Amino acid sequence: MPGGAGPITWTFRVRYSESDQMGLAHHGAYVTWLEAGRIEWLREHGFSYRQLETEGVLMPVIELALNYRKPLRFDDEVELTTQAAVLGRSRVAFSSEIRLRNEDTIRSTGRVVVACVGPDGRPRRLPDTLTALLPAADATASA
Amino acid sequence: MPGGAGPITWTFRVRYSESDQMGLAHHGAYVTWLEAGRIEWLREHGFSYRQLETEGVLMPVIELALNYRKPLRFDDEVELTTQAAVLGRSRVAFSSEIRLRNEDTIRSTGRVVVACVGPDGRPRRLPDTLTALLPAADATASA
Amino acid sequence: MPGGAGPITWTFRVRYSESDQMGLAHHGAYVTWLEAGRIEWLREHGFSYRQLETEGVLMPVIELALNYRKPLRFDDEVELTTQAAVLGRSRVAFSSEIRLRNEDTIRSTGRVVVACVGPDGRPRRLPDTLTALLPAADATASA
Amino acid sequence: MPGGAGPITWTFRVRYSESDQMGLAHHGAYVTWLEAGRIEWLREHGFSYRQLETEGVLMPVIELALNYRKPLRFDDEVELTTQAAVLGRSRVAFSSEIRLRNEDTIRSTGRVVVACVGPDGRPRRLPDTLTALLPAADATASA
Repeated sequence: MPGGAGPITWTFRVRYSESDQMGLAHHGAYVTWLEAGRIEWLREHGFSYRQLETEGVLMPVIELALNYRKPLRFDDEVELTTQAAVLGRSRVAFSSEIRLRNEDTIRSTGRVVVACVGPDGRPRRLPDTLTALLPAADATASA
Repeated sequence: MPGGAGPITWTFRVRYSESDQMGLAHHGAYVTWLEAGRIEWLREHGFSYRQLETEGVLMPVIELALNYRKPLRFDDEVELTTQAAVLGRSRVAFSSEIRLRNEDTIRSTGRVVVACVGPDGRPRRLPDTLTALLPAADATASA
Repeated sequence: MPGGAGPITWTFRVRYSESDQMGLAHHGAYVTWLEAGRIEWLREHGFSYRQLETEGVLMPVIELALNYRKPLRFDDEVELTTQAAVLGRSRVAFSSEIRLRNEDTIRSTGRVVVACVGPDGRPRRLPDTLTALLPAADATASA
Repeated sequence: MPGGAGPITWTFRVRYSESDQMGLAHHGAYVTWLEAGRIEWLREHGFSYRQLETEGVLMPVIELALNYRKPLRFDDEVELTTQAAVLGRSRVAFSSEIRLRNEDTIRSTGRVVVACVGPDGRPRRLPDTLTALLPAADATASA
């Protein structure tokens, strides 16, 4: 039975090193933000990803999609909201929305699928404690 | 009438700074590789993206998708093959395949859509010389 | 007469994308942390670097030095303490110390000199309001 | 007796993702270039750093210094010349000069000291085959 763990918001500022010569946050920086958002989602729901890796639970990215609707700039305060959903026994889908702090407009959306693998790179089941927490995948179908 | 400019291959090595603690090339590094591949595609077909920006033709990324099938590691020699296609008057879709050098297996695929905008961020038509070169979008539909 | 603006501490977590295959925070990531620390130093003392650039006050880095004594790892909570000092009319030296949060041991020290230039890249005087704030350079001589 | 292995030049282009909103190559990008230069120095002299790590010979950076004299920009073709020298039994100093391709002016200089450690992070002697190759440290004193 799917769990009900909800979305988590992580707030940060765009770094100068993340700007590019267009004067915008480079589209590649968003990938590292989504990653930090996934790690904060896990933390807020009781999982340390650092600890998971120590226990042999690795989660490499197998799919990544980003839509850039409205740009961000150096020093912008950004709210990244991340939600997770289970995809079968060994994959998790994370959906993210990116906004300026205290603004409703979605600036960017992202979707990342991670696989659960062991240190040998082979698929393994997600930890039961994590699966129990995760909503079913259709919860993020719109993202 | 769509043009017939073909795919371009760029070869490089995975940098140590692009590795992560899983011992793999970090998924975010691929984004910068796709970007370099687009720039090489343009160069090989007679366009300097640096020069285009100087002339007020900017191409920010509006969509990004990557599939990671098989990992890459530090120091791997990589072949990135990029093809471009026109999407309407002001957008270009780039599709990429990533392989180890001299290996047939596709390790990763990517698709990036860029918009053509002016220095003010507003959409503008692609330069005619570029449009004339680009195949129609269905040429990359499979990527 | 030199000013008395003091050191500023910025706290953050090491990102996964900043790890490398040794399992440590990559030495290049520290450079972007020092930069964020400089920007927080300015902000806490009343200057927005974003706003300064808008007004034509740019501060490119002309010297960088880092010592790595003890490594950091993904997810470590880090305290970066930054102090600034004036170097003549158009340069500022920033000295930084990096520690694990709530730990006394210095893990790393950094020193960065920035030049004050205009949009044309030519040296210009630091804004008087900033110079008035900055201690003299010997305040950071030990770093 | 010190060896006579000479400097190695690696040529590359500045990536778009390495530019910043000043329109220059970000100072942090140089750090990853120096690293690639060290790896090419080793390769040209018969050592695969990837292989060395597999054999338990790790070389984390313990000191880094860079001087930025004249900026570089996106798409510049850059020549990075790297020389190595031995520092005692377990450290190597690498000195680098950065120029535009086919230009004499030095745009930037760098110096990096790496320690030789085992997988446990403890100092270990450099491989004898590498020590035999390396000139003494004063060969790079000017850098």
